[in-house]
Amino acid sequence: MTAEFIKPVIWEGDAIRLLNQQKLPGEVEYIFLKTIEDVWDSISELKVRGAPAIGIAAAYGLALWAKKNGSDDLQTLKTDLTEKSAYLNSSRPTAVNLSWALQRLLKASGEEASAEKVITRLETEAILIQQEDEETCRRIGEYGFSLLPEQATVLTHCNTGAIATSKYGTALGAFYIAKEQGADISVFATETRPVLQGARLTAWELQQAGIDVTLITDNMAAHVLRTKQIDAILVGADRITANGDTANKIGTYGLAILAKAHGIPFYIAAPLSTIDLHTATGDDIVIEERHAEEITHIAGKRIAPEGINVFNPAFDVTPHELITGIITEKGIVSGDYESGLAELFEPARI
Amino acid sequence: MTAEFIKPVIWEGDAIRLLNQQKLPGEVEYIFLKTIEDVWDSISELKVRGAPAIGIAAAYGLALWAKKNGSDDLQTLKTDLTEKSAYLNSSRPTAVNLSWALQRLLKASGEEASAEKVITRLETEAILIQQEDEETCRRIGEYGFSLLPEQATVLTHCNTGAIATSKYGTALGAFYIAKEQGADISVFATETRPVLQGARLTAWELQQAGIDVTLITDNMAAHVLRTKQIDAILVGADRITANGDTANKIGTYGLAILAKAHGIPFYIAAPLSTIDLHTATGDDIVIEERHAEEITHIAGKRIAPEGINVFNPAFDVTPHELITGIITEKGIVSGDYESGLAELFEPARI
Repeated sequence: MTAEFIKPVIWEGDAIRLLNQQKLPGEVEYIFLKTIEDVWDSISELKVRGAPAIGIAAAYGLALWAKKNGSDDLQTLKTDLTEKSAYLNSSRPTAVNLSWALQRLLKASGEEASAEKVITRLETEAILIQQEDEETCRRIGEYGFSLLPEQATVLTHCNTGAIATSKYGTALGAFYIAKEQGADISVFATETRPVLQGARLTAWELQQAGIDVTLITDNMAAHVLRTKQIDAILVGADRITANGDTANKIGTYGLAILAKAHGIPFYIAAPLSTIDLHTATGDDIVIEERHAEEITHIAGKRIAPEGINVFNPAFDVTPHELITGIITEKGIVSGDYESGLAELFEPARI
Repeated sequence: MTAEFIKPVIWEGDAIRLLNQQKLPGEVEYIFLKTIEDVWDSISELKVRGAPAIGIAAAYGLALWAKKNGSDDLQTLKTDLTEKSAYLNSSRPTAVNLSWALQRLLKASGEEASAEKVITRLETEAILIQQEDEETCRRIGEYGFSLLPEQATVLTHCNTGAIATSKYGTALGAFYIAKEQGADISVFATETRPVLQGARLTAWELQQAGIDVTLITDNMAAHVLRTKQIDAILVGADRITANGDTANKIGTYGLAILAKAHGIPFYIAAPLSTIDLHTATGDDIVIEERHAEEITHIAGKRIAPEGINVFNPAFDVTPHELITGIITEKGIVSGDYESGLAELFEPARI
């Protein structure tokens, strides 16, 4: 199996088939989500993760609910959809793709004149989001690849790969394109505590695809930057604000500082759906704090004393001045992010 | 039990009673080391860790061997001691206290005129090293405490506490002194992957002592420095070279860069036995690389895919220009480390 064929979210018409990322890399398990509550739980419990994949799962979740439970009265249906959309949106607070995908479904289906047509449109629109994401990721990968030297060694954080999206991934997309083109690419992957997406997912995905990958712990990054001839750091994003400040997996901000200290370019790779022009700066982003157990336990085993205080922010914010470039499906933005990001949305965003 | 009474290495006359730090915090287990091979294994397997504690254990290990196996022929004994000392010294390559303690034993016992007296002297010298370390740590703690504001929040890395030394610890010594003086101290402890000394040992030690401690993963440090009003970073050292470059637990170098980026002082706390004037700069330090399993497994469970490449340096080197001050038992050195560190050893080092 090569990573190209790993799909994290598969629409079955009356259920969502989901790769349970909590079981990787030990076990490749697909689960079936049959209710909107199943979808909420899967997002909340990180069975599906990665901003684009979360958006796709939520879109199918809303379509699934409508298909099974939607009223045949148009007004009742619309009221219920608003409520169910808000419910799904509450499953993860930081990822903007979640609300983006749900809003897109509400808007598109809102054009329809009957309950039946609304329900059909929700499904076709969710499928369209997934198809577009695949094309988007391919373009991001191509733009990302264009920034790398011929023989490249790149450090990445968390998982922004095929299993975080529909295919290819965002930051990892550049590595898949490099592999397709026969380029010489090596990757250092940080394990990404506390949930270990780097060790469990990125290392697995790249290994499956035959890409040279070396796993390190998060605190080895500075030593690796100093000693291993790293050409670039390439990571994803959960939310990019109007001025370019970027919320991403905890640890990203530290890597950006380390990149600057070593004179190494630091790139964010993310689809337009991650860019939130309605949020002015990173200061306006609410940082999700997660369960203490993510830190005190690993693989079900306690590694810290009972009753210890824990601080567990899931994300941090990297100020735009530490970012060399933001790679999107419509090109690479750098320098004046405020105007550069806004231009990506002209003509007006869907 | 308060941390003051936790002793990691206890001399029993015919054995070493050792706190098995690999079992903490789940279990407080003492093991008995009865042969020099037991001591070698315990150091190599991190059952005893922390530069001063390693030095103490190795010193007792050599004394133990001599007491049980030493020849009554002086020349044979001396030849054997040189060989056994080299053997013990090979148990961990980076920590300078190990060779420092062993050299001190060889030198002191070398003054004796009979095999019997050499054997006795080895034991008394090992006991003296432990007693001096306790006094040393207390002074380091007092100097460290003097650098902190009245209400202090400090970030620390790895474990440099009572259980890494004879008592008090080095970097953690400042917190114990603060506690003794009734000062208001809060600590953020990084978990310190891969071996989790922060989560398993520092969090446990400080919690036992009633000191306010919050556990974070290593990659949260930058976000904490930015958002939590941190007054200082205070860490230990495994080897300090003549120019002030410092080898310490992997992750230290990154923290030093992050401290500078946030305008936060970055202190090293270490006894004179950690200072190696015979090594000119950090470039001359050999960085120990350890087993891949430390990264791919946690608490016996696999967390990364089979066959994955791993890079596992145990230490990194922090250049002296990133260090605000080096806290020793003879005072605080800053600025011109080359002359400042050399002055600590006048009159000439023992």
